[in-house]
Amino acid sequence: MNVSSERLAQQIRFVIEIDKLKHVLRRTYLLDQTRRENDAEHSWHLAVMTILLQEYAETPVDLLRVLKMVLIHDIVEIDAGDAALYDEAGNADKAERELAAADRLFSLLPRDQAEEIRDLWQEFEARITPEARFARALDRVQPILHNYHTGGRTWRELGVTAKQVLAKNRDVVFDGSPALGEYVVGLIADAVA
Amino acid sequence: MNVSSERLAQQIRFVIEIDKLKHVLRRTYLLDQTRRENDAEHSWHLAVMTILLQEYAETPVDLLRVLKMVLIHDIVEIDAGDAALYDEAGNADKAERELAAADRLFSLLPRDQAEEIRDLWQEFEARITPEARFARALDRVQPILHNYHTGGRTWRELGVTAKQVLAKNRDVVFDGSPALGEYVVGLIADAVA
Repeated sequence: MNVSSERLAQQIRFVIEIDKLKHVLRRTYLLDQTRRENDAEHSWHLAVMTILLQEYAETPVDLLRVLKMVLIHDIVEIDAGDAALYDEAGNADKAERELAAADRLFSLLPRDQAEEIRDLWQEFEARITPEARFARALDRVQPILHNYHTGGRTWRELGVTAKQVLAKNRDVVFDGSPALGEYVVGLIADAVA
Repeated sequence: MNVSSERLAQQIRFVIEIDKLKHVLRRTYLLDQTRRENDAEHSWHLAVMTILLQEYAETPVDLLRVLKMVLIHDIVEIDAGDAALYDEAGNADKAERELAAADRLFSLLPRDQAEEIRDLWQEFEARITPEARFARALDRVQPILHNYHTGGRTWRELGVTAKQVLAKNRDVVFDGSPALGEYVVGLIADAVA
């Protein structure tokens, strides 16, 4: 194989840079509540859930594309930070910060790969294709599972009610996976009880 | 969709259980050296590397299968722990501990998925198929990158020489990816210098 060393150098530079995702903390706690979860762990968890729960997608999905999406969806938060779902102030200029982050981070890659990763990220954000709708549903289900199994830890900390949790998540989860939507509504009802 | 609630319950039980992988610490340090890396973060990093570096596989690979393998390859360490590559004592009964771990963990899943995940894990361990050979090469390249960019931190802590690093990794990396093998040999030579 004829390896362009500049191409490989660019790829490795990106691989090195995204190590920082392991430092981006989310609001969600690990299930033993010893610490908050970071974006890299969250992305891994979503990827395994994608493999195991694909049968519940609303429309059959291209599994490889969903996996790529969930693996790269949070990389922009290296620069833009994690904006909690219920933080209206933090979400106000989120799109702008994430676009700038995408420009800087993805352009570390060779042009063809920069375009592929950026397209996947934008597909995830737009939530139109079956793959993006399922990926976005899982991205909501995972923190709800964590909250449910930690006595609603993050919801309590943020002072969020069950009604707000439902309002923020219901449509996105049902849109990508009616079955997981029903499951999650059951969990939230149980958490309230 | 007709969801068998018992099937979904089994799948969610596994999803909850594998949260523990975020607590399994490896010998490798994050690039800023503030702490050691855990298996969930490592698996995510490998998965992104799989997507970006697939062109360097020795034989063309089924990307989806490589991704599945790297995402699940360390789950057995929830029970069996992480045995450092250079720890001969820790590696003595590793296979036995990991088999017991696979029995317990994968059997949380519905039978069809338990079989799929177990097959993928055994394929990774056997390192015969092109997919497993590439996955195993990446699993060696990632810690070498981290060591190189942290002044050989783990190698120093373990008192491992460049010769030992090469002896332990060279064949596995070259077997899955000659191009990455050459890259890694260059890194180790540079680390020595």
